[in-house]
Amino acid sequence: MTSLSLSGVFAPVLTPVDANLDIDLPLYIEFCQWLLETGCHGLVLFGTNSEATSFSVAERMAAVDAVLNAGIPAEKVIVGNGTPAVSDGVELARHALAAGCHGVMTLPPFYYPKVSDEGLFRAFAYIIEKTADPALKMYFYHIPQISGIGLSADLLDRLATAFPGVATGVKDSSGDLENLRRFQQVGAAHPGFSVLCGTESLLLANLRGGGGGCISGMANVIPDQIRVLYDNWRAPDADAQQTRLNWLRNAALGTGYNVIAAAKALTADRTGKDGWCRVRPPLVELGEAQRRTLTAAAQAAEPVLA
Amino acid sequence: MTSLSLSGVFAPVLTPVDANLDIDLPLYIEFCQWLLETGCHGLVLFGTNSEATSFSVAERMAAVDAVLNAGIPAEKVIVGNGTPAVSDGVELARHALAAGCHGVMTLPPFYYPKVSDEGLFRAFAYIIEKTADPALKMYFYHIPQISGIGLSADLLDRLATAFPGVATGVKDSSGDLENLRRFQQVGAAHPGFSVLCGTESLLLANLRGGGGGCISGMANVIPDQIRVLYDNWRAPDADAQQTRLNWLRNAALGTGYNVIAAAKALTADRTGKDGWCRVRPPLVELGEAQRRTLTAAAQAAEPVLA
Repeated sequence: MTSLSLSGVFAPVLTPVDANLDIDLPLYIEFCQWLLETGCHGLVLFGTNSEATSFSVAERMAAVDAVLNAGIPAEKVIVGNGTPAVSDGVELARHALAAGCHGVMTLPPFYYPKVSDEGLFRAFAYIIEKTADPALKMYFYHIPQISGIGLSADLLDRLATAFPGVATGVKDSSGDLENLRRFQQVGAAHPGFSVLCGTESLLLANLRGGGGGCISGMANVIPDQIRVLYDNWRAPDADAQQTRLNWLRNAALGTGYNVIAAAKALTADRTGKDGWCRVRPPLVELGEAQRRTLTAAAQAAEPVLA
Repeated sequence: MTSLSLSGVFAPVLTPVDANLDIDLPLYIEFCQWLLETGCHGLVLFGTNSEATSFSVAERMAAVDAVLNAGIPAEKVIVGNGTPAVSDGVELARHALAAGCHGVMTLPPFYYPKVSDEGLFRAFAYIIEKTADPALKMYFYHIPQISGIGLSADLLDRLATAFPGVATGVKDSSGDLENLRRFQQVGAAHPGFSVLCGTESLLLANLRGGGGGCISGMANVIPDQIRVLYDNWRAPDADAQQTRLNWLRNAALGTGYNVIAAAKALTADRTGKDGWCRVRPPLVELGEAQRRTLTAAAQAAEPVLA
């Protein structure tokens, strides 16, 4: 990561749980190490693919501590601190900063379906001002199809203007190229404000438009493949690489299964550890027949990637 | 409250905040006392009208402690323990039980927009099983227009069957009479399972259909008026009373303003304490012109209620 503007391939790290549905810390640490060894520039602990909202503030902080204590470099770690309660966002941000993490990724408070941009500005400002640390780097998290709350380019521009050096970027998980381009304009207007796309299928478009990279759920499954495209995005065959990269995504997601349960099942396949399939409620793990279908779809896509 | 099935008029207590946006405990205690003196049978601390999701678990527990330490009878208190993380729900339930509270009111985990009944069953079961206290009484909270997650009558029936004496009721805030009737059928099939409506405008229909009463945001504003209807629901003029009761609701809500900000503004009017108008982000307090419009609408409705 550069200190000027965040760039690279990041995984919103899947969170393994044990039979008691508590975070399986040894497996978690092992997985974080594998992700960094296999292509990721950095890790987002507790994004949507991590089932972030299914874990308490205390559980999240303990997991961050465990990963850092195991030797994962703190500067490669961004901590998801989005919760409905802004006071929780402050606690998680302070904890991440005290541990030396690069920054936080922040969902808007997501209970009320109708909130104004003024209300969202105040929510993010509350977290920034109460965290009260100029070292804070906050990446706003736009995933309206899940959170129910979209972030407008106007809001991001207002935040970047009000909090330069602290409001340092956005993750756009909308999957909407037009929206990504609006966010890229915000980035262009505010040096150091990085635009990360939430799907590797837009990685090339994002890098070409001045974005910094991607934080993609599929980076939990094929970090190496995504990294290859990131490293070669100026190559003559980059478009063909992007198209190849999309095939596995489409094969896995084409099953229509919950993407988190699916990514965990593929990780169980890769590691041979079936415990990886577990999820916390309200999610439900894939059934056996679903898992067979998913595995077959992923295997059929593999030769394409070779 | 009867130990057999919850009945009465309950307020989802508004949460006053000070200039620092922390809970104003003296004002909160004073308000809880007023609600019980003015008609409420009991209090729901941290429902939607309380901005529950805007406060951390620690903030909620401290507020519950403050109210009980001030002498509010614990058996008249239900604590909202709905959060996206089921582990938080366990912590809040254990705290409420240790304090002697009547029970908890539980939202489904509300981040993911698509969750199955199986996933919701597991989420509620997690909280019940990890709380591990047979004294637990859980009221499920159906407010799909806000939380994005509806509870089906089939799910409630499954929960009431699996956890008799613990799965003790539902709050239906959908405002949908047909849905309320489906829930009443669940109540009829499970003795001790109480159906509370989330709006006093359906109070008569709910009591006539075997429901236990209401937990209504307007009980923060006119607990006395709602209590009169509750006490007289078998009177010959009950329908006329219900119609009169609806007028103030329609006058206040007819402004289209956020109902929580509006209820707080009306409380500021009543008490003469403008600090009542404050809300936590992402909500925004009413502007001055909005407040004048609301006050005028409420005053115009008042003679009708005399």
